[in-house]
Amino acid sequence: MKRILPIVWITAQLVLPGTPLRLYDVSLSRAQEVRDPLPSWNEGAAKRAVIDFAHRVTKEGGADFVPFAERIAVFDNDGTLWSEQPVYAQFVFALDRIKALASEHPEWKEKQPFKAVLEGDTKALIAGGEPAIAQLVTATHAGMTTEEFKGIVKKWLAAAIHPRFKRLYTDLAYQPMRELLAYLQAHGFKTYIVSGGGVEFMRPWTEQVYGIPPEQVIGSSGKLNYEMRDGEPILFKLPEVDFVDDKAGKPAGIQKFIGRRPIFAAGNSDGDLEMLQWTAPGGGSRFGLIVHHTDAVREWAYDRKSLVGRLDAALDEAEKRGWTVVDMKRDWKTVFPFSGGKTSNRE
Amino acid sequence: MKRILPIVWITAQLVLPGTPLRLYDVSLSRAQEVRDPLPSWNEGAAKRAVIDFAHRVTKEGGADFVPFAERIAVFDNDGTLWSEQPVYAQFVFALDRIKALASEHPEWKEKQPFKAVLEGDTKALIAGGEPAIAQLVTATHAGMTTEEFKGIVKKWLAAAIHPRFKRLYTDLAYQPMRELLAYLQAHGFKTYIVSGGGVEFMRPWTEQVYGIPPEQVIGSSGKLNYEMRDGEPILFKLPEVDFVDDKAGKPAGIQKFIGRRPIFAAGNSDGDLEMLQWTAPGGGSRFGLIVHHTDAVREWAYDRKSLVGRLDAALDEAEKRGWTVVDMKRDWKTVFPFSGGKTSNRE
Repeated sequence: MKRILPIVWITAQLVLPGTPLRLYDVSLSRAQEVRDPLPSWNEGAAKRAVIDFAHRVTKEGGADFVPFAERIAVFDNDGTLWSEQPVYAQFVFALDRIKALASEHPEWKEKQPFKAVLEGDTKALIAGGEPAIAQLVTATHAGMTTEEFKGIVKKWLAAAIHPRFKRLYTDLAYQPMRELLAYLQAHGFKTYIVSGGGVEFMRPWTEQVYGIPPEQVIGSSGKLNYEMRDGEPILFKLPEVDFVDDKAGKPAGIQKFIGRRPIFAAGNSDGDLEMLQWTAPGGGSRFGLIVHHTDAVREWAYDRKSLVGRLDAALDEAEKRGWTVVDMKRDWKTVFPFSGGKTSNRE
Repeated sequence: MKRILPIVWITAQLVLPGTPLRLYDVSLSRAQEVRDPLPSWNEGAAKRAVIDFAHRVTKEGGADFVPFAERIAVFDNDGTLWSEQPVYAQFVFALDRIKALASEHPEWKEKQPFKAVLEGDTKALIAGGEPAIAQLVTATHAGMTTEEFKGIVKKWLAAAIHPRFKRLYTDLAYQPMRELLAYLQAHGFKTYIVSGGGVEFMRPWTEQVYGIPPEQVIGSSGKLNYEMRDGEPILFKLPEVDFVDDKAGKPAGIQKFIGRRPIFAAGNSDGDLEMLQWTAPGGGSRFGLIVHHTDAVREWAYDRKSLVGRLDAALDEAEKRGWTVVDMKRDWKTVFPFSGGKTSNRE
């Protein structure tokens, strides 16, 4: 990249001194794609559908051409861009934070759901249901500035190890999906995350892992309070939910934050159903994609009955609406960046 | 632009087939600025400060260099980018909608604040205070889909005439601020609107008037409900406030939507004080700008005691924090695009 920039820049300056150029708005012909843009995808219907879509919407003069500005793609995160099993990384983060903060909160030893966390009593934790989870999230995600929280997340991510793969959580981003993000970005797409996860939990690392900047991350959030501390302005994280970006909240979040309808959506669970319906109601120059977890050897196999990442109604609707269902075992040559070309047992 | 693209594209393709280029991340030297980038600004301290800032933060290797991704600029809208006198355009829109909808609501004839609007009784309207305004906004901004509302706004803007200038409201965008937006955009800035106005009222026209796309508009909003209507997904505007993007809400909104701290903020009233504090707390490679309305001949003169766009605490704080106060009468050669080179009486 560095080598070519000066040449292009000089050429540009001859005609347009001082003007930066926007060169995204081009369609790439097949001939120009010398290298395989999705090397971690096996050849098959899913890979073909994605590539066909990218060509269709970027082909100027074509029936399905979509102007640069309208090329918005939205991606769920947990289970779509990185692993969500055996449980969401953000939940592990919350439990780890409870343990780290326990010495400052001696009362937690006798108080649920904190007691359950400290004693590793999963049964009591599950019995607490959603209110228990809300209490844990509040205790670990509020009561500090946004900058302080960012630092805590970064520190945790640099150290926490996934129980099965013995890797950092950010290593569990799916290589094929990273290629898909880069491929769409190369075709002028603005790629967004639209996740039920906490927005401030994702923003510190999405740029590095997915090439998605903070302002293109939409997620659940707590309320913020602007205040002055020793003459310096801060944003304080309040223990109050502001927005839940899941299920019907996803299309609402898309409108709130983006203000236009995407043309590409990828998800993996029923939490993504409404986002997929809103983005790809059927036909035309719109694309819906579902990552179907079918690979217990290389990752996990789960769908209709899973507690985490349950995929049931959305799987049924995929057929009706013509969404592309990616069979992880069949369609992905590689799952994780660290696993290289290793394929599943079936192949 | 069209003429140069093929040349640049061919050059690029020689080395990087199929790869789009991002050429924003460059600093422009003074020598490259052959033409005056801010022709509607008079020479003076304000213009010089803006240009110096742009050079400083884009000068690679310089002490104040800011990488491309961090070049975020936020602008208030009413009174900063377009006129807000004698009253906010969106308020005129609401009153016009009440009148247009009156035949469907015979009960409004006897019910405040609708009665006051229909009878043109300003005194009664003002007496109703904020609750009255909230009722008017609810009656005119909710109870329809986001798409329907967008259509209503576009239709209104294409027809409504400003009482003093006898022009469309969008003609009342300040030419110097449009040039400033373009100038920062040319220096790799991502420009955002951060306004107390309704986000769905602004998005239909900000791209055309300011070069700011819908996803870079942050504003006040109502709650949205996702639902199916005849098998098609819609987002229905509920009569419930979701977010008020004013005063301390502005830095909170910036964090919610952008997730990083801007380095440039422009406002014109005390409603922008917290946004300016958050963006430009003082010193370094950050810039605060206040549009001071000092020109009763070409626009309006108002500040500390104005009902609309009151500028008092922020004007005092500007000196303390080193923000640039733009004196409209002195610093702007032209105010509106339609007024050409016409200058104020004083000159």
